[in-house]
Amino acid sequence: MARYKCIVSYDGYDYMGFQIQDEKKTIELEITKALEKLLKKKTKIYASGRTDRYVHAVGQVFHFDTDINFTPLGIKKGLNSFLPDDIYITDVKTVSNDFHARFSALSKEYRYYVNTSEYSPLRKRYTLNMFNLDFDLMLKGIKLFEGEHDFKGFASASIDKRKDTNKIIFYTNINKIGDELEFIFVGSGFLKYQVRRMMGLLLEIGLKKENEDKILEVLEKKDPSISHKVAPGHGLILYKVNY
Amino acid sequence: MARYKCIVSYDGYDYMGFQIQDEKKTIELEITKALEKLLKKKTKIYASGRTDRYVHAVGQVFHFDTDINFTPLGIKKGLNSFLPDDIYITDVKTVSNDFHARFSALSKEYRYYVNTSEYSPLRKRYTLNMFNLDFDLMLKGIKLFEGEHDFKGFASASIDKRKDTNKIIFYTNINKIGDELEFIFVGSGFLKYQVRRMMGLLLEIGLKKENEDKILEVLEKKDPSISHKVAPGHGLILYKVNY
Repeated sequence: MARYKCIVSYDGYDYMGFQIQDEKKTIELEITKALEKLLKKKTKIYASGRTDRYVHAVGQVFHFDTDINFTPLGIKKGLNSFLPDDIYITDVKTVSNDFHARFSALSKEYRYYVNTSEYSPLRKRYTLNMFNLDFDLMLKGIKLFEGEHDFKGFASASIDKRKDTNKIIFYTNINKIGDELEFIFVGSGFLKYQVRRMMGLLLEIGLKKENEDKILEVLEKKDPSISHKVAPGHGLILYKVNY
Repeated sequence: MARYKCIVSYDGYDYMGFQIQDEKKTIELEITKALEKLLKKKTKIYASGRTDRYVHAVGQVFHFDTDINFTPLGIKKGLNSFLPDDIYITDVKTVSNDFHARFSALSKEYRYYVNTSEYSPLRKRYTLNMFNLDFDLMLKGIKLFEGEHDFKGFASASIDKRKDTNKIIFYTNINKIGDELEFIFVGSGFLKYQVRRMMGLLLEIGLKKENEDKILEVLEKKDPSISHKVAPGHGLILYKVNY
């Protein structure tokens, strides 16, 4: 038996999210169907984590096991030939059997894109449109997320109570790229809705509807109801998973 | 009666082109339907020119006349509220009655995008994928298009024989933006398929399947059958029309 690690890129705009939900249009369902066609056998895949509805990826990772003898390049070409053109495998490697796409991940990088100029149909799938954002206030705010914190206040209210909500954020930044802002979050892991809720509050700060103390308050009180803006999924890209 | 000049941006990937073709999904049909809803009256629009199937625009221009009293901002907001989200009016102005979106145009700018790294689902709608292109050969080639030439050899073979095929190209360039190449063409006007056919030959030159003398040969012999590669429409954006 060999274990394969795959890196996958997808445009999530037309999908209901990564995780299989019966026959709904999901990334996992498409990959699983392609893999079944290739291996002629139902084969479960294990991803680094889920992505929400509309969320994109350029560096999502999953692994699977098979007895069937394929080269990594054969897997890559085979899967891509069966996948729809909004999902594409960029890399396949064989890995040892103790590699796990989710449990071996050391860090993840997410990026969020905001178009600060007029709405553009050519960027609608990949950016949130928002005006009059104060860059310096948001940059000051995003840096407050760095370090080890209990991020329960930025998670979905519905997450399992027993879940460990302590996470480390290693790096954050905001880059200006033309009329767009690129928000970067690198962390040990992210809770459900965490990036979108951090973004939601950062944008409120950029609009001067909140100030950066609110970030400290949500981190301290650990109460998801204090700040409940969730930025839309389509501005978000799972950029990289590090192992 | 007032004449309005509108600038429109669209993602052409899901359209059959600009020009109305009965009830097929076209940009002109969507704009005409939105305008009829706004003005409660069938109103013809006149564009700077057509764009082909799959071709995008950020600066297409059209005009129309109406007796109904709207401010330019009212027209912009009204039309955008009725248009699908892949078509967006970025600007509306009143203009004098001798302005004509097509006949008053002094020059047009087109841009063509080629992704030279691995296929990306997030760029599939806006770039052609192609590898191993020699940048310097293409740059030398594109400059040969500058100046006044009879571009008949780069036009669709089906264009009207009486059409004036003499055009001026004022400026060309190729920019590297990350892994993408941006080809720029500014000219007095472009014949049907002209930009896509110039691109088709430039890419052959980049692949070293042709050399730049071929450009001179096609210009001189004025025969569209000598070089008949037509680059796909989805890499092309009508960027700006100058008046």
